[in-house]
Amino acid sequence: MEYEQLHELSQKVLELLSAKNFREIKRLINDLQPQDSALLLDEMNEKDILPIFRLLSKENAAETFVEMSYDGQELLLNSFTDAELKDVLDELFLDDTVDIIEEMPANVVKRIIKQADPETRKQINEILKYPKDSAGTIMTVEYVSLREHWTVKECFDRIRKIALDKETIYNCYVTDDKRKLIGTVTVKDLLLHDYETPISEFMEREVISAEANDDKEFVAQQIAKYDLSAMPIVDSENRMVGIVTVDDVIDVMEQETTEDMSIMAAVTPSTDTYMEQSVWQIWKNRIPWLLILMISATFTGLIINTFEGRLHELSPLLFACIPMLMDTGGNAGSQASVTVIRGLALEEIRPRDALRVLWKELRVSVLLAACLSVVCFAKLYLLDGLAFGQPYTWLICLAVSLALFATVVIAKIVGCMMPMLAKVCKLDPAVVASPFITTIVDALSLIIFCFISMAIL
Amino acid sequence: MEYEQLHELSQKVLELLSAKNFREIKRLINDLQPQDSALLLDEMNEKDILPIFRLLSKENAAETFVEMSYDGQELLLNSFTDAELKDVLDELFLDDTVDIIEEMPANVVKRIIKQADPETRKQINEILKYPKDSAGTIMTVEYVSLREHWTVKECFDRIRKIALDKETIYNCYVTDDKRKLIGTVTVKDLLLHDYETPISEFMEREVISAEANDDKEFVAQQIAKYDLSAMPIVDSENRMVGIVTVDDVIDVMEQETTEDMSIMAAVTPSTDTYMEQSVWQIWKNRIPWLLILMISATFTGLIINTFEGRLHELSPLLFACIPMLMDTGGNAGSQASVTVIRGLALEEIRPRDALRVLWKELRVSVLLAACLSVVCFAKLYLLDGLAFGQPYTWLICLAVSLALFATVVIAKIVGCMMPMLAKVCKLDPAVVASPFITTIVDALSLIIFCFISMAIL
Repeated sequence: MEYEQLHELSQKVLELLSAKNFREIKRLINDLQPQDSALLLDEMNEKDILPIFRLLSKENAAETFVEMSYDGQELLLNSFTDAELKDVLDELFLDDTVDIIEEMPANVVKRIIKQADPETRKQINEILKYPKDSAGTIMTVEYVSLREHWTVKECFDRIRKIALDKETIYNCYVTDDKRKLIGTVTVKDLLLHDYETPISEFMEREVISAEANDDKEFVAQQIAKYDLSAMPIVDSENRMVGIVTVDDVIDVMEQETTEDMSIMAAVTPSTDTYMEQSVWQIWKNRIPWLLILMISATFTGLIINTFEGRLHELSPLLFACIPMLMDTGGNAGSQASVTVIRGLALEEIRPRDALRVLWKELRVSVLLAACLSVVCFAKLYLLDGLAFGQPYTWLICLAVSLALFATVVIAKIVGCMMPMLAKVCKLDPAVVASPFITTIVDALSLIIFCFISMAIL
Repeated sequence: MEYEQLHELSQKVLELLSAKNFREIKRLINDLQPQDSALLLDEMNEKDILPIFRLLSKENAAETFVEMSYDGQELLLNSFTDAELKDVLDELFLDDTVDIIEEMPANVVKRIIKQADPETRKQINEILKYPKDSAGTIMTVEYVSLREHWTVKECFDRIRKIALDKETIYNCYVTDDKRKLIGTVTVKDLLLHDYETPISEFMEREVISAEANDDKEFVAQQIAKYDLSAMPIVDSENRMVGIVTVDDVIDVMEQETTEDMSIMAAVTPSTDTYMEQSVWQIWKNRIPWLLILMISATFTGLIINTFEGRLHELSPLLFACIPMLMDTGGNAGSQASVTVIRGLALEEIRPRDALRVLWKELRVSVLLAACLSVVCFAKLYLLDGLAFGQPYTWLICLAVSLALFATVVIAKIVGCMMPMLAKVCKLDPAVVASPFITTIVDALSLIIFCFISMAIL
């Protein structure tokens, strides 16, 4: 559903609400996909959200609740009666409950934990114990487990019996007496074998699994790489504890991309969306990097201070070229760094490719630099010099073009090597992206520019 | 498997190959996951790749082939006998074949088309007709279709019969006599109902589908949004033509992210990986943007040329602050633009939020600017002035700090509004990212700096 339609619909629902036409609202919102009714409820204010939510059927209510923004969920959780809270919680899958708990303030969490039944409470606490960003925090503990000696028929009986409560039934996990994972069976395998065949005859014994403490990004990459629809998660003794499904992977990938982009733009990443963050939060995520980068620009200032007198004597026109040099260096550097950072993230570039990358960037940079310097020379000499009549001598143009050549080559080399270096040092390559590389390249290119100018002119 | 292990393994395989110990190679490579044996083969050169590939079992051969890089596939396709080519093609899913065809040079494509059986050839040509980046190009035509009046038992019989050839069997599609899509049934639904129930009693009639001409990114977003494992693709008359599965979505999302990041770093996106691209290709993707940005830096040059004499008279120290002003403006701008671009991509920010975004950025920017200017003033006056003895008077420091304040506010406003504007004009917001915004902000902040300096000093 397009946002425009949704906006119209929410206006209509509000009108119906003030006209107390609940029956019509009920019809309208129960016809929507849960993702869309969630967006609709997210538009509502504190006063209207609960009356509208109450008009959802029991099944739709839980599905809608899961899809809402954390802000909307908090509004509802604060207004629910205890009975309503329990109804919603009972319908949620455990991993969704844990997601919500992790985002809610302490008083809301207390209410949720209190309303959960003892078994659920125990499981919630187990999951909350896994380290931040680990596979354990995104896995679901609701999966189908089978036993090795069962026949296809017994397996189907089991699946029929428990399927309603499980998020994923198509991948089943064969465990032994000690809950150790010994194989997997898909419903497709079951469908393709006779009812009387024991699954031990065809189950897949080579299982790709991950540990609950593994980084969730690693698990997401494995699932994407091996085209799995779910991956079993085990503890340190290979006992099955849960599964991570492919739809979780999509969420993780989106989060990781957002995180990488934030870091590359010198912003501390946040799990909240932009619209959810307060002005102070945004300020807090941005100010440290701007301060660091501003202070580090002291170097460029020092360099200019040192050479300003000499440059001014040689030609005041030289100053006019500094922004162009710095911007082109910055752009050339970020072209290389962003390409390499993305290649590293997708594992298309590996640390041991460092020399090959360096050699490639060296050749590319010489070609780029040659082309740019020729254009730069022509532009300064013909356009700014002859056409606009500014006193650009061919020596000045040569000095600027040579400095540009060196700047582009240095920018590319620094731009491709810094992320590789970060990777080797087990740092996040995105951290060294454009802003930091720009600062380094700026300083280097300024020094080169000053020396070339003084040498030539 | 880690790359280091893989590298060792490939060395070992090469040694075994020169020792003609084929049996051991066969054992080693058939034990690997197809994704890993593909990586192994990608390491091999023209001479060794075919002998090793021939040692894969028939089933492993096709699965491995699909996972290899286009370069590796091309090497193999060029060395295959016609019989070998046919064997591999027969095992491939149609959408994989089409993917490969789209990347291969004309002579290889001719050989592939020639070896395909007539039915496959017809289907390949159908798919190749869909527009670039449309859902039609990534869909698979192999899906399970059922009829409305069938019972659960009849459906299971059908699925058992055809399951081996189908990529996805868990989502089945109910079509009428004219192949029109009228509903969906999952294997889970089938398992939960009695054998004699007709599926018309429980099939889902509200189907979320897309058209084959729809953009593949749109389809990927829908699948991600509604947590689907597959989405039916129909033609303009609602006739079923194929399905897009969730593992395709992951690939599309990775491609789109790479494309967005490339565009944001002023690089023309490429579907080849960095290591696959030639130096000339990389050059071609980067040079236009660098040229445009370099030429557009003419404005900053003109501004400095205009004011250089006046600034030099006021204080030579002012030049030293220009790089810091420009860098901070650039960084502040890209913080805002990257955040907004990502928010727009994830639909967390909508075009009609423009005013709210502007108001938020305005407040954030004033807070950031205030903090940065105070630190900048203190740093110039106390550190550079008093400690290092450079002649920074408090008036110079004030001028620079005020200019910094204005620069940061302007950078944030331009940075957040340009992507919103691009979105409203139906352009890709990523196109207006950092490099372009930096160029605009540079010019504006320089003018402000010059005027503030002349007014105060």
